[in-house]
Amino acid sequence: MSHFKHYQDERPSGGAKVGKATLFQSDRLLLGLNTLSSGVEQRVHTHQDEDKFYHVLEGQGEFTVGTETRRAGPGETVLAPAGVPHGVRNPEEPDLILLMGMAPSP
Amino acid sequence: MSHFKHYQDERPSGGAKVGKATLFQSDRLLLGLNTLSSGVEQRVHTHQDEDKFYHVLEGQGEFTVGTETRRAGPGETVLAPAGVPHGVRNPEEPDLILLMGMAPSP
Repeated sequence: MSHFKHYQDERPSGGAKVGKATLFQSDRLLLGLNTLSSGVEQRVHTHQDEDKFYHVLEGQGEFTVGTETRRAGPGETVLAPAGVPHGVRNPEEPDLILLMGMAPSP
Repeated sequence: MSHFKHYQDERPSGGAKVGKATLFQSDRLLLGLNTLSSGVEQRVHTHQDEDKFYHVLEGQGEFTVGTETRRAGPGETVLAPAGVPHGVRNPEEPDLILLMGMAPSP
């Protein structure tokens, strides 16, 4: 495997569903990229045994974590510890591109 | 805890050593920020049981992973699976700012 990956080379396409690409996966860690085109939503869901984070690379998202919904843009990290409901929606152009990590790997 | 953190609000100071700040920590995951001022190095080391990644937010670093040494800048992710030696040096101004993750937490 290559140990060096630029998100602009690896970013998945958007579309009607969340685009997903894997940067790294082991039992311990899943690291990937998500692309959400305008209007696309990842519905609120919960991972009981995995901690998850999103780090916004491009665009703006409306993130829900627990009971809080907030807009976040480039440079922001959104933390969803195990057991905490979370989801994200891209309300508008351009594409929302996220670095996403889960530990352990689901 | 806050579930939303912008790296510019959390970034550690640089200086003679690697500046470190924690964004999130559980048994499963350590997510943090590292700041390396010009000339500062994190020597090559190995985590036997943890996968690690760096994602470059600002600046340029000379990263070593395994037998490869390469420069990486903003938008690049550097992957150091468990057992693979890795380190990073900032050869020049400005500060190098990294999002860093380890799973499980060391």
